[in-house]
Amino acid sequence: MPILNKDMSLCISLSGRPSNIGTRFHNYLYDALGLNFVYKAFTTDDITAAIAGVRGLGIRGCSVSMPFKEAVIPLIDEMEPSAAAIESVNTIVNSDGVLTASNTDYEAVATLLESHAVDHALPVLVRGSGGMAKAVVAAFHGAGFEDLTVLARNAEKGSALADAYGYRHVTRDPAPGHGILVNVTPLGMNGSDADALAFSAAHVAEAAVVFDVVAFPSETPLIHAARKQDLPVITGAEVIALQAARQFERYTGVSLTAEHVAEASAFSRATQ
Amino acid sequence: MPILNKDMSLCISLSGRPSNIGTRFHNYLYDALGLNFVYKAFTTDDITAAIAGVRGLGIRGCSVSMPFKEAVIPLIDEMEPSAAAIESVNTIVNSDGVLTASNTDYEAVATLLESHAVDHALPVLVRGSGGMAKAVVAAFHGAGFEDLTVLARNAEKGSALADAYGYRHVTRDPAPGHGILVNVTPLGMNGSDADALAFSAAHVAEAAVVFDVVAFPSETPLIHAARKQDLPVITGAEVIALQAARQFERYTGVSLTAEHVAEASAFSRATQ
Repeated sequence: MPILNKDMSLCISLSGRPSNIGTRFHNYLYDALGLNFVYKAFTTDDITAAIAGVRGLGIRGCSVSMPFKEAVIPLIDEMEPSAAAIESVNTIVNSDGVLTASNTDYEAVATLLESHAVDHALPVLVRGSGGMAKAVVAAFHGAGFEDLTVLARNAEKGSALADAYGYRHVTRDPAPGHGILVNVTPLGMNGSDADALAFSAAHVAEAAVVFDVVAFPSETPLIHAARKQDLPVITGAEVIALQAARQFERYTGVSLTAEHVAEASAFSRATQ
Repeated sequence: MPILNKDMSLCISLSGRPSNIGTRFHNYLYDALGLNFVYKAFTTDDITAAIAGVRGLGIRGCSVSMPFKEAVIPLIDEMEPSAAAIESVNTIVNSDGVLTASNTDYEAVATLLESHAVDHALPVLVRGSGGMAKAVVAAFHGAGFEDLTVLARNAEKGSALADAYGYRHVTRDPAPGHGILVNVTPLGMNGSDADALAFSAAHVAEAAVVFDVVAFPSETPLIHAARKQDLPVITGAEVIALQAARQFERYTGVSLTAEHVAEASAFSRATQ
């Protein structure tokens, strides 16, 4: 039973299709660490009013997901480099009425490329051109990857994303031969795309590392195919936990250990 | 540990000085009745932004306390008679984006006058002229009391309140002799006024019923003095529980028994 109290700081998420992951992840850690915080997911059909509410109710932190990552930009006060560079926000911190935006997806991907020791020399094929793809491509660029191709049917967004970093853009599957495959589309996600393989078997056969940002499930057809080949994988479960951890630290000022993140991640995914 | 979930309906309160009472009262009953709701108290320095947040975040219900009971009126869509008649709102219900305001303080006082079988023929002396006093005087009027005096140092507000119902207004203590004494000021409330007796000993000596809306503590010096004389009393604990119950029913659509209200009231007051 939630015995809330009036002094709890509230953190929330705003997304088009809320999941329970953030709510469970953050509340688990508030409890484990004895913090007087509470977290709840929201959706909205009026992002301007919702952000007004963040100010008016003194909500401490706000996670921002599709389709609001760009729409919130004119509504906040300050942009950290992680969000400004890619013009995409996934985190808002409210410090005494000043809303500061950042992008912990970018930070999480950058951290994972390093912790998985992904080889900078390999050619990268990134599928997708949305807000999350912007964070992913920027993180690859920041990590020093020079050969990257953006695969996106949306020619305008795809070429804009690739051009920003001097990368290549294609609208159709290129020939196989990319060492790193990165899916940043909903292909493989629960729902109508659940059975879709984000890259062809021929692409997977020639890959050295497979990275899928889809988190529900994190064992997508693409990740399955990669595991069958014993390829190293980076999953959406890792991305979502790490970006949530960076949000948690910004909201609470408390640093998390890897064990905390692993526990909260397991808890958050245990009962969807 | 609060295991919140994304589908929970959120209800909140907005007040200048939040207490834990509402948060504990409502959450106790959500749990007891198995409702997927959660409740938390807030304050704000921007009531317009806060009410925008009620809309933007789809917050189901909002209790309104001092000093916002009149300020919210231009921000809501529809006024029920209980709020419109006294131009004071303590409850907002959000039904698919339409905000409807009501005043459950009025309803609670009207119910208590009836359940305590207070004699309509007795002369009434009401101390106070704020938002809650408007609800109290309106309820006495609605219940058929004809002889009522408003005692308020604020001549403008006091006379406006009395005039609205054809009652009398005085700025200083009248001679004792009123059968019903009603305190609707902070006199006796925790803080600097804790030791203050809202009516003189001479007034209490001639009273037949004593009614104090102060809820923290509900055993005020006035209620103490009345109990010493074995007078029937109506306390602020009764008012706050009953008005919260009426809010609960509006927010959830679930009716409460007297036992539910008593249990939740006891729980809400157990650990302040």
